[in-house]
This record gives sequence, C-alpha cells and structure tokens, in this order.
Amino acid sequence: MKILAATKILKANELLAEENRRTWSAEGVFAVNVLGSPGCGKTTLLEALFAQLRDRIQPAVIEGDIAGSIDAERIDRLGIPVVQINTEGACHLDANIVAAASRQLDYRRVDTLVIENVGNLVCTAGFDLGEHLRMVLLSVSEGDDKIVKYPAIFQRSHVLVITKIDLLPYTDFRPDRVAGDMKRLNPEAAVFQVSALRAEGVAELADWLLQARLQAASPPGR
Amino acid sequence: MKILAATKILKANELLAEENRRTWSAEGVFAVNVLGSPGCGKTTLLEALFAQLRDRIQPAVIEGDIAGSIDAERIDRLGIPVVQINTEGACHLDANIVAAASRQLDYRRVDTLVIENVGNLVCTAGFDLGEHLRMVLLSVSEGDDKIVKYPAIFQRSHVLVITKIDLLPYTDFRPDRVAGDMKRLNPEAAVFQVSALRAEGVAELADWLLQARLQAASPPGR
Repeated sequence: MKILAATKILKANELLAEENRRTWSAEGVFAVNVLGSPGCGKTTLLEALFAQLRDRIQPAVIEGDIAGSIDAERIDRLGIPVVQINTEGACHLDANIVAAASRQLDYRRVDTLVIENVGNLVCTAGFDLGEHLRMVLLSVSEGDDKIVKYPAIFQRSHVLVITKIDLLPYTDFRPDRVAGDMKRLNPEAAVFQVSALRAEGVAELADWLLQARLQAASPPGR
Repeated sequence: MKILAATKILKANELLAEENRRTWSAEGVFAVNVLGSPGCGKTTLLEALFAQLRDRIQPAVIEGDIAGSIDAERIDRLGIPVVQINTEGACHLDANIVAAASRQLDYRRVDTLVIENVGNLVCTAGFDLGEHLRMVLLSVSEGDDKIVKYPAIFQRSHVLVITKIDLLPYTDFRPDRVAGDMKRLNPEAAVFQVSALRAEGVAELADWLLQARLQAASPPGR
C-alpha cells in the first residue's frame, strides 16, 4: 500500500514536470534545479554565480524552504526576481508547487530560472521539477563519503559542484575520492570545485552553465 | 488524501514507538536518537563519545543509511555491537524498522542504545523511534541560520550539539546566534559545542548524557 501510493504520487509529479519543461522551453527559459544538504552553500553559490553572469543572463529564482524567507531576501537584495515557497514541513519541492510559484514570474524578462530546492540529500532526488539541468552541491565539510552513502541524488544530476574548497586545509576531504566515486556512479556528469567565498572556480562553472543553456536551446540532433 | 495517509502512517509509527520505549525501559536500555544533516559529524561524534564513556556504559548502535555500511564498519572497529539498516531510498528511520534491528541485539549486554538516523534535517524530525533522548547535531560549516530554516527538528530535540567548532576561525558561524535561536524555539534544550576531532567539549557532553540516562531510569516523581 505504501509503495503503491508513492508510485502514484511520483507518476503524477512526472506528468506535471513534463508540463513545466514544455512551458519553460516554449518561453525560452532554461531551468536549473539546485540540490544539496542543508548548509552546503546553495544560496552563497548562486550569489557568486549571479555576480559572474549578471550581464549575460536574465535570471529569476524560486526558493524552497521549510520555513522563513532568509534565502529569498538574499536573492532579493541582488535585485533578482524571486519567489519564496514555504513547504511547511515537506522535505522537497514538487512539480506542482513549482508550477504555481513560477506563474508569478514575468517570463518576458527571464531566460534562466534557478530553483533552489529544500536542503535535503535524499527526498529531493526523486522529484523531477521540469528542470533542464540538475546541479548537486557537496561541501568539503560534509566529508568525502557522501556519494557512496546517498547515491540516488548524485546519479540523477548533470553536474556536481564541490563547494567550500577553502576549507580543504582544515578537513580530511579528498576531492579525488569524490571525483572517482562520481565517475563510477555517473560518468557523464561534470565535476567542479569552487569556493564561492573566494570566487575560486566560479567563472569556470558559470561558463559551463552558459554552454549547457545553449545546448538545451538547440533543437535535438543539431 | 495525501494528508490522510501521512497521518495514518504517523499514528501507526507512534504506537510502535511507544512499544519500543516500553521494551527498552523494561530491559534497562537507554535509547538515544541521533539526528542531523549529511556530514554533520554524527559517526565521528559517536566515536569520540564512546572513547570517553567506554568504561561507564555498555553501548550498542543501530546505523541508518540509505545505502552501504561505511558507518557501521567504523563502529564495528571499536568492538561495539552494531546493526546496519539500509533504508534503500527512504529518508528516515521509523519505529518499525528500528524494532526489527534492535531484536538482533543481546539486551543483557547493552544498557545504552544509540540510533544514528539517516542524514536528514527534515524527515527524521517527524518519526519517534521510541528513544528516551533526541540529540540533534549542527556543524559549524552548515551556517548559523539552520534553526530558523528547519525549526521542527530543533524544536523536538532534547539537546543540540554544535559540532566541528575547530572550523570556527574559517567560517562566519556565530554560536551565540544559534544558541539564541535555540533558546527562543526550545528553551528546555541543552546546548553543547564540541570538536570531536580535537576532543573539545566531548567530556562535558558525555557527562550530561550519563546524567540524562540516570534521570530516565528513575521512577517518575522521584
């Protein structure tokens, strides 16, 4: 019974996600789903990326949080359109709530929609929001065993960003181990190392995201 | 419909949790549910606590992970009885799966059962496992805004342990802010700051846990 219900919920979510993807593609909006543990540095990375990309994209952000609007306020301070979702306890965003939030955006002024999911390395993995690209973050301070322990989210992402590399000297985190684990699990995924604090590696990631956006906009087969 | 189902699941879990609590109390076993984000340092803190408490308690551990047995192997190396649960995707332990795991332990040789939950600051909060004490960890590298953003888990815990304080010089984490947020949300909770790596604050936490164990064993009203 429990398994049946979960299957039905996931199936309904998939249909809504496909609808989101069609809508965004038709509007020329490239959508990115940003995932990672609480405190892995999602909002801080977005701030650093927007600083790099400000003149090259027209971004909007949907912020998913259990409670509060701390992250949305940070994005708002950059002058970027932002919609806050409070999940009121739910551990992940789904395609339905994101569709409702995205209807509040003016697509004529947006070409890149960044959806910052709830901080959660488990539940967010199973819910397609209709994004074109899924970016997962892993911070150095979380330890280098996370890909083995939480495989689903890493398997289903297009790009892994190892964050907070400024903390490398103070931890036993081995980026090579993580890159190797990722290569085995998901050979197609790109891997970046960044310090948003020191703006290290951010330009490379920004360029890669622009490239991915161009490819998503091209008709298939080109 | 979804809400109804969740209510039923939670109600069934509560009944099983009460049964676990009765069983463990009758066997003289003090049960602790350890919660926190992926990579907040749960296993490392347990290693440090067991080093302190080895001669004073007879511990056993139940390890909850999505996949793998990395954490159970670490506990096993200490010569402590350990049962690994693989949730195969589920984002939290529940009272039923913990009951099944705990039946594999020999209660005659155990007086303290530590249940290390799946790394998750959201879903684990709603599921009573039958523990006597709920301990939540927050690492310095996760940022000091987490109590506001994930209130449920902090509200429902008896003790907050701020971990990785050796990283304080390299982050903008303000322990005072976290202690203040916790005081407002959950005034009864104890708050500790530790570095398991440097064994700072671990002895104080260990003593407090022993005290909590004694109080749990006393008949009510004494």
